[in-house]
Amino acid sequence: MTETENVSRRDFVKMAGAAIGGVALGAVGGYSLIPPKETIVTNEVEVEVEVPQEVPEHPWTYVKLDVDAVKARAYDAYFNGGCCYGVYEGVIGELKETVGFPYTTIPTKISVFGKGGIMGWGATCGVLTGAGMAINVVTTDLAPVNEIMGWYTEEALPIYTPVVALKVEGDIPTSVSGSPLCHASVTNWSNLTGFAENAPERAERCARLVADTAGKVAEMLNDQHDGTFTAAFAVPDSVIECGACHGADGPVNNVFGKMDCETCHGDAHN
Amino acid sequence: MTETENVSRRDFVKMAGAAIGGVALGAVGGYSLIPPKETIVTNEVEVEVEVPQEVPEHPWTYVKLDVDAVKARAYDAYFNGGCCYGVYEGVIGELKETVGFPYTTIPTKISVFGKGGIMGWGATCGVLTGAGMAINVVTTDLAPVNEIMGWYTEEALPIYTPVVALKVEGDIPTSVSGSPLCHASVTNWSNLTGFAENAPERAERCARLVADTAGKVAEMLNDQHDGTFTAAFAVPDSVIECGACHGADGPVNNVFGKMDCETCHGDAHN
Repeated sequence: MTETENVSRRDFVKMAGAAIGGVALGAVGGYSLIPPKETIVTNEVEVEVEVPQEVPEHPWTYVKLDVDAVKARAYDAYFNGGCCYGVYEGVIGELKETVGFPYTTIPTKISVFGKGGIMGWGATCGVLTGAGMAINVVTTDLAPVNEIMGWYTEEALPIYTPVVALKVEGDIPTSVSGSPLCHASVTNWSNLTGFAENAPERAERCARLVADTAGKVAEMLNDQHDGTFTAAFAVPDSVIECGACHGADGPVNNVFGKMDCETCHGDAHN
Repeated sequence: MTETENVSRRDFVKMAGAAIGGVALGAVGGYSLIPPKETIVTNEVEVEVEVPQEVPEHPWTYVKLDVDAVKARAYDAYFNGGCCYGVYEGVIGELKETVGFPYTTIPTKISVFGKGGIMGWGATCGVLTGAGMAINVVTTDLAPVNEIMGWYTEEALPIYTPVVALKVEGDIPTSVSGSPLCHASVTNWSNLTGFAENAPERAERCARLVADTAGKVAEMLNDQHDGTFTAAFAVPDSVIECGACHGADGPVNNVFGKMDCETCHGDAHN
C-alpha cells in the first residue's frame, strides 16, 4: 500500500501533541539545534520524526551563566577574533553550550568587525560593542548596556588573571580609562604604564579586559534574571556642568552624550 | 497496522534524496523559515514531511539587494528603533525579504543598543555599528567596514530625501562629520547649521543618514558580490603625521586608531 500524506508543520505539532499527551515541545531545558524527535500518527502508522523549530520571538530566554566559565571563554576567544568577538563569544558561546537552540543559530564571528574600536579605528572599545550585542539578544531592557559603559570608564582594569596566560604571564598594570573609546583607553593605559601600544603587554591587557567585561555582562544578566539588578553608574559631574549650557535644556544645546567632557575638553572655557 | 519507525534527520534527507531523485535540498533561491516539504518512504508508506534546516556556516550567502529599497526600509526603521537598528534592519530586513532563511533567524531588534553612540553615550555613531554588524553577517572580508567608517567621516551627509518625510519635510542641511563618533558628528552638524541637538531637524538628519549608510552598505556588498568593490578611503594626513611619533614605529608609540587627530587634538604641540 502506497499513500501520500501532506503533513504541515502545524499539523505535525498538533498530531504529535495528541500522540505524546500534549507535552509542550521544546519547553524543557537543553534545547539543541538537532530538533527533538516526536511520534506522529498518520494513516494508522506511527512514525518518529524530527520537528522543525521556529526561532522564537526576540528577546530570547536567558538562563543564568557560570561567570567564571564566561570569563575563561572570553579570554581565549580574544586571541581568535579580537576584543568584540571575545566578549560576544564569551557570553553567547556559553549560552550555546548551556541552552543550545536558538543560541546555536548565531555565528558569533559576526562580531569580529568591532575589534580595536571597529576595524582598528579606535572608536568605541570593542568589548563594549560586544557587550551591547550580547545583552541585546536576551533583553530589551538595556539598562545593563548603559551600566557596562559606565563601569568600563570608572573601573581599574584589567582585573582578570588567566589560569594559563596566552601572551604575557604575571601581573598586568591597571588603569581607569575615563572613556569608552578604544583610542583614549589604550593611550591612557600606555601613558600610565609605559608600555607601548603594540607591546605584548597591551594585547594581554586587552584580553584580560575582554574577560572582565564578559564576566560583568554575565553577572548583570544573572542579576537581571533574578530581579536583583541595580544600576550603579551616574554620569560624570562634567556632563552635568557642561550640560547646563550645552545639554537639552541649555542655551547652546549642541551636545549629546554621556562621555566625560574633561577627557577631551579639559581646557574648554579656560 | 501500527508500527514505529525511527527516522533521524540525516536518514530523512537521505531517504528524501532517494525519493525525489537527489535534488539538492534548499539550494535554490527563495529560502524560507518554513522548511521545504519532501516525500519520504517508510514502511512502504509515502509521507510528505517538512525537513528541518540547519543554519549554514558563517558567513552567510549574500544576494544583491535593491539599494533604494534598503534606503527606504532603513529610513522608516530609524523611527522604530534608532540609528543602529535602522541600518541593521535596512540591510538584514531586505535580506530576510529577498533570501528568507537563514536571515529570518536574526531578530534585527538585537541592534537597538547601538543608538546614539550606544545608549546615548555619544560614542561610535550607531549607523556605523549597525553597518559593521550587517556587513559581518555576510562576509569575513571586512574592508567594507573600514570603508564605511572613512566614508562617514568625509562625506557631506545626509544625502537621502525620503518620499514621505516622517519628521521634517524639505531639505536638511549637510555636514562633514570629520569623526565616526556620534557626539562629534552631532555637535559639528549642530554648530554648522544652528539647529539644536534636540530639534526635530536633528532627528530627521539622523534618519536620512541612516538611509544613506544602509544604502552605502548595500552598494558595497553588491560590488563585493560582483568582485568590483574597491576601497577609496585613505587615513587622514594627521594620522600619518602624528603617527610618525605616536604610531607603531614611532618613539612614543601610545596611539592606536584611524580617527582624524585634528578633530580633538588640533592644538597639540602648538
